[in-house]
Amino acid sequence: MFEEEKEKVENGIKKLLKSKLPEELYDASAYLILAGGKRLRPILAMKVCEFLDGDDKNKAIPLGVSLELIHNFTLLHDDIMDKDETRRGVKTAHMVYGEPFAILAGDTLFSLAFENIAENYEGEIARKTSLEIAKMTREICDGQALDMLFEKRNDVGEEEYTDMIYKKTARLFESGARCGALIANAGKREIENMARMGKNLGMGFQMADDVLDLTGKEEKIGKRIGNDIRRGKKTLIAIHALKNASCEQRKKIVSTLGNGNAGEGEIKEVIEIFDKIGSIGYSQSVVRRYFEEAKKGVKKGPLLDLINFMERREA
Amino acid sequence: MFEEEKEKVENGIKKLLKSKLPEELYDASAYLILAGGKRLRPILAMKVCEFLDGDDKNKAIPLGVSLELIHNFTLLHDDIMDKDETRRGVKTAHMVYGEPFAILAGDTLFSLAFENIAENYEGEIARKTSLEIAKMTREICDGQALDMLFEKRNDVGEEEYTDMIYKKTARLFESGARCGALIANAGKREIENMARMGKNLGMGFQMADDVLDLTGKEEKIGKRIGNDIRRGKKTLIAIHALKNASCEQRKKIVSTLGNGNAGEGEIKEVIEIFDKIGSIGYSQSVVRRYFEEAKKGVKKGPLLDLINFMERREA
Repeated sequence: MFEEEKEKVENGIKKLLKSKLPEELYDASAYLILAGGKRLRPILAMKVCEFLDGDDKNKAIPLGVSLELIHNFTLLHDDIMDKDETRRGVKTAHMVYGEPFAILAGDTLFSLAFENIAENYEGEIARKTSLEIAKMTREICDGQALDMLFEKRNDVGEEEYTDMIYKKTARLFESGARCGALIANAGKREIENMARMGKNLGMGFQMADDVLDLTGKEEKIGKRIGNDIRRGKKTLIAIHALKNASCEQRKKIVSTLGNGNAGEGEIKEVIEIFDKIGSIGYSQSVVRRYFEEAKKGVKKGPLLDLINFMERREA
Repeated sequence: MFEEEKEKVENGIKKLLKSKLPEELYDASAYLILAGGKRLRPILAMKVCEFLDGDDKNKAIPLGVSLELIHNFTLLHDDIMDKDETRRGVKTAHMVYGEPFAILAGDTLFSLAFENIAENYEGEIARKTSLEIAKMTREICDGQALDMLFEKRNDVGEEEYTDMIYKKTARLFESGARCGALIANAGKREIENMARMGKNLGMGFQMADDVLDLTGKEEKIGKRIGNDIRRGKKTLIAIHALKNASCEQRKKIVSTLGNGNAGEGEIKEVIEIFDKIGSIGYSQSVVRRYFEEAKKGVKKGPLLDLINFMERREA
């Protein structure tokens, strides 16, 4: 689905990274972003632009390219910070090119994202898009900082978690939708409606991700089940469970959450506890609510298809 | 000198970083940039703007703030890549806050730089400034990559070195001058004249730095003499010396260049060889040429004062 849009975005990315020197830097910069990805953020921006202004389907491609550059820049740096050794089933960039070149590759993609906006849009549209993307990127940093700080705490509340994933994940979807509307020359109200839709979509997307970490199929999601538990991630599921667990259940959860060496049996046990307490079901209902909110005002067409596609994904 | 401009820029930086959350991230972001610095890049942009458009002395402050944010973002990341433990006489940010927060602090300053441009300038001026800064930042990354690659080689030529320091250092001065002129609403020719001046100034500045590393006073430059030799930096001095050394001299240089554990005696010996070959004198003459070039077209006023100030610095 959306294969045509994916290809357009990928061609745009390749063109930006092609035959630039020094080769070592641009190889490192291309490694992750050309290794795959669903390109959901660019597709969202393009479908929002199309939804509001059917005329030129290609208007939002450069915006989409920049969003994907920003997304991959954050992944490159996050992988270093989190000391992750694999992503999308392959070695992370810093494992292949070393930390210095992976840091620099991220900075390069970041610069290219702004270069690309300023080269493809004009005057106030360029300024507003650039402002939105800069603000959003800073808030992604805020979100990543919170995520790291939360890993060390056992008293993270639902509101704190919601704020963190808004910044770390949903903010980029919100910005994608807002800028897609901006570029379509939409009015203020329409722009903010689309931004709200994007935010709900992003929140639903991330919370669904947290559920998939426990209930997904390893061969589909491309990583071990229960990764978030081993990492000590304070997902909505973990927060709900810690709040509603019996004394004994809580003990089991706390001893496993954040234990990087937890075996499959232990992980399975904790997932069963989460399920018994109703934490997985609770999260699934929250996910549904976000997607329903996102659909308000989008009654048909490719934008609705995209929302449904994201809601139904299994990986 | 230029104390008033320094204060204005520093107040602008403080305002941007003040009372933002999470505290841990903004503390890490403020650590290096508020630890000191000569603010030469902002002052250059401000003096160029004033030189071309005397009306509003404060017009270029936000530009100056963004240039300083970019400069410090690159320092934060460079220090991690180079595993440097001190800068400006104090511990580097990653030694105090850990690598993850230092990486993130750099990304935060980077975002803020673009946010600040888009919030303080309008339409095409904002777009052009943002484009120039984004391109420049990417070229700084190119320069840093080359610098790291050159450290491992003994056959770096003068042209390669010149290209590297242009990208890594002079490009930011060039951009500062170009954007200062842009914001002053200067014509195309004036803008490019100022850019050329900034480039020459930046080249002279960096090459003077290479000379100071060998001839400066430790208590003034705040680091050990011969740091570049221990790091294996292929400065113009080292390149000139390697090219013109006798067989015996070359042996001594090669065995010391890049030896992190070289003692003071060894370093002193290599500096003496550099001097005897005439490499230090050669570099000093190149430095003079760059500053003379920079002064062309700037016959008087604060901009000339700045160029002279930079030429005469001892630290």
